[in-house]
Amino acid sequence: MKRKNFFLAFMLLPMAAMATEVKSPNGNVVLNFTIDDGRPTYTLSYKGKDVVRPSHLGLELAKDKHASMGMNERDLMDGFTLVKEETSTFDETWQPIWGETRDIRNHYVEYVAVLQQQWRSAPAKAASGMQLQPRQHRREILIRFRVYDDGIGFRYEFPQQQDLNYFLIKDERTEFAMAGDHTAWWLPGDYDTQEQETQETKLSEIRSRMQEAVNWGNSSVAVFSMTGVQTSLQMKSQDGLYINIHEAACADYATMHLELVDAKTTELTTKLMGGSNAYTPAPSTVPGGSPAGSYPLPQPFTFVSHLTPDATGLKGAMQTPCETPWRTIIVSDDARDMLSSNLILNLNEPCKLEDTSWIHPTKYCGVWWEMIVGKSSWNYTDEFPSIKLDNIDWTKVKPNGRHAANNEKVKRYIDFAAKNGLDQVLVEGWNVGWEDWANMWKRDVFDFQTPYPDFDIQMLNDYAHSKGVKLLMHHETSSSTQNYERHMEKAFQLMNKYGYDAVKTGYVGDIIPRGDHHYSQSMNNHYLYVVKEAAKHHIMVNAHEATRPTGLCRTYPNLVGNESARGTEYEAFGGSRPDHTCILPFTRLQGGPMDYTPGIFVTRLNTWSNNTSWARITIAGSLALYLTMYSPLQMAADLPENYEQFDDAFQFIRDVACDWDESIYLEAEPADYITVARKAKGTDNWFIGGKCDENGHKTNIKLDFLDKGKKYDCTIYADAKDAHYETNPQAYTITKRVVKQGDVLKLTEAPGGGFAVSLMAK
Amino acid sequence: MKRKNFFLAFMLLPMAAMATEVKSPNGNVVLNFTIDDGRPTYTLSYKGKDVVRPSHLGLELAKDKHASMGMNERDLMDGFTLVKEETSTFDETWQPIWGETRDIRNHYVEYVAVLQQQWRSAPAKAASGMQLQPRQHRREILIRFRVYDDGIGFRYEFPQQQDLNYFLIKDERTEFAMAGDHTAWWLPGDYDTQEQETQETKLSEIRSRMQEAVNWGNSSVAVFSMTGVQTSLQMKSQDGLYINIHEAACADYATMHLELVDAKTTELTTKLMGGSNAYTPAPSTVPGGSPAGSYPLPQPFTFVSHLTPDATGLKGAMQTPCETPWRTIIVSDDARDMLSSNLILNLNEPCKLEDTSWIHPTKYCGVWWEMIVGKSSWNYTDEFPSIKLDNIDWTKVKPNGRHAANNEKVKRYIDFAAKNGLDQVLVEGWNVGWEDWANMWKRDVFDFQTPYPDFDIQMLNDYAHSKGVKLLMHHETSSSTQNYERHMEKAFQLMNKYGYDAVKTGYVGDIIPRGDHHYSQSMNNHYLYVVKEAAKHHIMVNAHEATRPTGLCRTYPNLVGNESARGTEYEAFGGSRPDHTCILPFTRLQGGPMDYTPGIFVTRLNTWSNNTSWARITIAGSLALYLTMYSPLQMAADLPENYEQFDDAFQFIRDVACDWDESIYLEAEPADYITVARKAKGTDNWFIGGKCDENGHKTNIKLDFLDKGKKYDCTIYADAKDAHYETNPQAYTITKRVVKQGDVLKLTEAPGGGFAVSLMAK
Repeated sequence: MKRKNFFLAFMLLPMAAMATEVKSPNGNVVLNFTIDDGRPTYTLSYKGKDVVRPSHLGLELAKDKHASMGMNERDLMDGFTLVKEETSTFDETWQPIWGETRDIRNHYVEYVAVLQQQWRSAPAKAASGMQLQPRQHRREILIRFRVYDDGIGFRYEFPQQQDLNYFLIKDERTEFAMAGDHTAWWLPGDYDTQEQETQETKLSEIRSRMQEAVNWGNSSVAVFSMTGVQTSLQMKSQDGLYINIHEAACADYATMHLELVDAKTTELTTKLMGGSNAYTPAPSTVPGGSPAGSYPLPQPFTFVSHLTPDATGLKGAMQTPCETPWRTIIVSDDARDMLSSNLILNLNEPCKLEDTSWIHPTKYCGVWWEMIVGKSSWNYTDEFPSIKLDNIDWTKVKPNGRHAANNEKVKRYIDFAAKNGLDQVLVEGWNVGWEDWANMWKRDVFDFQTPYPDFDIQMLNDYAHSKGVKLLMHHETSSSTQNYERHMEKAFQLMNKYGYDAVKTGYVGDIIPRGDHHYSQSMNNHYLYVVKEAAKHHIMVNAHEATRPTGLCRTYPNLVGNESARGTEYEAFGGSRPDHTCILPFTRLQGGPMDYTPGIFVTRLNTWSNNTSWARITIAGSLALYLTMYSPLQMAADLPENYEQFDDAFQFIRDVACDWDESIYLEAEPADYITVARKAKGTDNWFIGGKCDENGHKTNIKLDFLDKGKKYDCTIYADAKDAHYETNPQAYTITKRVVKQGDVLKLTEAPGGGFAVSLMAK
Repeated sequence: MKRKNFFLAFMLLPMAAMATEVKSPNGNVVLNFTIDDGRPTYTLSYKGKDVVRPSHLGLELAKDKHASMGMNERDLMDGFTLVKEETSTFDETWQPIWGETRDIRNHYVEYVAVLQQQWRSAPAKAASGMQLQPRQHRREILIRFRVYDDGIGFRYEFPQQQDLNYFLIKDERTEFAMAGDHTAWWLPGDYDTQEQETQETKLSEIRSRMQEAVNWGNSSVAVFSMTGVQTSLQMKSQDGLYINIHEAACADYATMHLELVDAKTTELTTKLMGGSNAYTPAPSTVPGGSPAGSYPLPQPFTFVSHLTPDATGLKGAMQTPCETPWRTIIVSDDARDMLSSNLILNLNEPCKLEDTSWIHPTKYCGVWWEMIVGKSSWNYTDEFPSIKLDNIDWTKVKPNGRHAANNEKVKRYIDFAAKNGLDQVLVEGWNVGWEDWANMWKRDVFDFQTPYPDFDIQMLNDYAHSKGVKLLMHHETSSSTQNYERHMEKAFQLMNKYGYDAVKTGYVGDIIPRGDHHYSQSMNNHYLYVVKEAAKHHIMVNAHEATRPTGLCRTYPNLVGNESARGTEYEAFGGSRPDHTCILPFTRLQGGPMDYTPGIFVTRLNTWSNNTSWARITIAGSLALYLTMYSPLQMAADLPENYEQFDDAFQFIRDVACDWDESIYLEAEPADYITVARKAKGTDNWFIGGKCDENGHKTNIKLDFLDKGKKYDCTIYADAKDAHYETNPQAYTITKRVVKQGDVLKLTEAPGGGFAVSLMAK
């Protein structure tokens, strides 16, 4: 089903400055757009409540020495007239290659505003020295809104035209004026890391919380403002609206952060005579930028977009025709709608891969957790103070005896995977270079080709294949992207040769080329370049430390996962709060699945290692994550021997699907609890998971979503009565019964706990 | 013949601060080395005359947030003791794959000083926040000198050691204290261009000349100081010494410039309280650098090394074991020794390619000059304000009618090459993307794969091969190195498929990734990466706009040429001075051959185009360049129809070799005249060329280098009596006679002219 009707299109030159109202299909979401003193301005409401108060749209452009070559310098901020409007509806249902539901409806009202700037340039001298003659300029940009029942997406579009061919972005100045002092779940804005603990504060408290919110010991920290936060940003208003700001389809463009204008900003601005922390990036980082204070400061509680810069401080180099990513605002008065929203996927382009037969959901285990915990090592030797790949004969070096990715251990994992129906085995540390891989500014850090001498790549792949298992490749780039791109083609060829069909990539540490950032335009281009090149080799990609996703997996469904947030590894680095996994689905997961690597059963790491950290979760809670943290790629992260201690509980991981025909969010509240029921793809089986924070949670699940007349073998994995994430995490019960439509499950989740239910159709 | 004897090796800990004297094999060049108040210091003399007065050696290191990971921050400037010395001799004769002579003798006395720093660090907090405990540090570096009869080379070496594993270079501070106010032939120091006209001034006049020396209209200009100059820097002292400073074997290291400390520097330093233009780079460009004025300012007339920075202002990221390039000082009281010196080649590593059978000297013509002049175009269409490669169906676009690289024209050039014994035909503008290729910050600017619709790559290569000619590939990168590296492998595969064996690469415009510079460590790594990858495909490389060469062609002889200076194209951009080609062999050519693209016969471009520029050379002078500008790759740059007008003169280009068994510089004076006789490789034929400046030159050439008893058919291409580069450039005479050993040729070179002689053994 696909319909697209233009029912309103008219043209005035210029149009009267009256607001245009655009309603979502069910009328709940209402957008208003107008030109306010030459500046494009919008508002948003939900069921009559303010979501976004009048907010300006625009971009500041950077001066460039190539202005005389056609580069644009005049800002795309003001002086606009509205010369054309178009409104249309769209309604289509499409099927993702993998996902939470078999069908996704994409139903919106679209509104396009065509804006024109005209001016006469003064005679000027370009930075190159060339004399520029005065002349008349005219250029047009479009702002395209799509209004859904659960929010809006909008973007800037730049048609190809004589007066707008190339331009450099100083910064995008999209405003989101919040209607009140909402509660927000936020991460410090940062150009290089998104692995912090989420903060929960009022908007007015962001500034005062910032200092403690930042993990200053993380060498990747690149915080840019005391009120800068990341997207996806989840908020809740005092009048009960859930509001989420993020972006969709961020490809060859810098990742957006949000900088809050608060009362202090206004105070500082007044004090600094036109300067403001929202609008005054250090002059040294923005070459030739327009003077601070060129545009008036928005009201407090307004977020202003702040893009990730490149090494020179610029935010983007654009060539028309082009467009920005979609800026998304999801809104509802029901928190569950935040989780079931497909707005971001819908705003991405349809699948561009012709053949997707090789893409498949994957459960895997891996030689990983024991290195994260510190019991064994990625590197093979401790013999050298530093290594250069070309200079070492690996057959002659002295092993350190701690190298995990050895033949014996990998075979053990293969056996475990085969026995338990896991599809793949990740092996980290298989390839030479781990001796000094991080934070040394080493360009030529890995070759992605050469196994350590104790990793027999041919034998192990053969062994795995003989048991119906595949190995899962690992490419840690150490953020030396130039080096990775130089070796990537051969690395993928090697994967094809040995039968790998998925790779976990990593971007730990500082970007090389130096000065670039993880979330810049060029890095976002790189991540997608890898995905596209991998697709040519029928390789699925799971990129860690890459930019937080924005739904590009719809277009390139071989992007089966990302980390891009604080994952399970932090349970070994001091731990994460118990509510962490009740926040991530509202924030990080909006843009795409996370390779959270759940499944820790032995939460006290000192029981089998020297690591004194402990995971803040119960075993039943760990099982719940396979439902509440949707991903087509799910790891069973703990050690085989740890699972073997709790084989009855591990049965759930054996059983659970990771691709779905249907998903129903039964309950949800950010940072408190999430309960979801999902129907496994192509089956009549259902799985239910519930996860809660440190306060525990009680729930009654009415099984009215089951097929009428059908019976189900129901297995309930629940926290025992005395279970507690800190004191008694391994106390669980397993109950079996037969259920039918309409039955009710009464379940109690322990503090930091949860439950998991399998319902196998009889 | 290869001998290496250690005849002096002793050890003291620490040694007394007395100077060590090292003499060259014939004793003319004398090096002195000592530790002066903890700083390594050297002097150099030639036949008792001062060449370098006491000059310090050292490097300033940059602070890094990864200090706690083992990064070094303490400067390698002072606090040194001499703990070991080694002296040895070396004498070897080797054969280059191609070159000016069949045999090259590498004969030097080597002196190695082992220097130690010891200190106890104070407790400190690393940038990462980690607490650093005080401890005892000890590290050693080596300074290795090689003392030749015609100069010295020296470099810093950094052995692998616990206290020196990784470090970042803030700048190298190698001093070259000149003994007087020499005359210098210099180019403005610049991170991105070396295509300026050479300036001839006293050292004391560099500052006042700088403003006019810079072509400010060139958008690539990145001048860093009012006294910064490039190497190779040629000087002449008032007492008649010729001194040249350059570098050898600059691979994964930033290109060195020289910043002169002059009287004004001292004055400014005094005024600015410790600041100086030699030692105070803008703090914003050197992260965490040590405070200005940490080290005392050298005396006036001292050059201090200044490396090319990366986008963050850093000059290098190093991992031990490693070394700097060699810093070279060639010296003689005979200008001809400057030209015949093999010091820079000798300081490079021997050939690393196992099979070199596919590398060959090449004469070529090309579809090039008419685009440079502006008569035709590289691009195929003018239809679009900008293009994106993926969006265009090239078979449907409207041709502009000016596209030069079309089947008909290329066939015409192939016919011309075949008829005249030229090996190859360069075709620029064969591939899509030229419509908006430069200065637009376009990353995805070319794919190096797709020909324009009027260039039938299969047919044209077949046609060429059927006539015994090859096409010469062209890869203009537009300095988007990331894009080039992404496409390079496939581009080389395409070359292999169609039978190309040489590529001219280009690096016009600003480097992408943005902020990087043409001569930075990463770019130098890139250029060599291309050469190495090309070698795997048996492809010869001729890189334009790349870093000025430093003799790496010894190690990778498929690097057959570079531009890296102001080439013939500037004759169409306003012209170059007549003495330009009498300077280049002293400067630019020290590091390796230049693809100067000589051979302009029709110097008044407006006789066949709208270009009003004119080449400042006579036809006889143009012929001379094939001898005086040594290169294994020589172009006949003018149009076939222009050569056909002067076919008797063109005979010399047909005849002249471009690989030699012997070369004898008969006369030379920088910027005045150069006369050289060369014996063609594997033959008994000799060729002689003489080129002079705007003043003309008279010479008597005694043919005592000819074989005794042998007779030679001698053809002399000389300026006619009334020839003049401006008023009568096409007036030449061709004289034939038979000569023998001991005969004398009396020749007169017109202003801006020259002569060429072929001596074919009978």
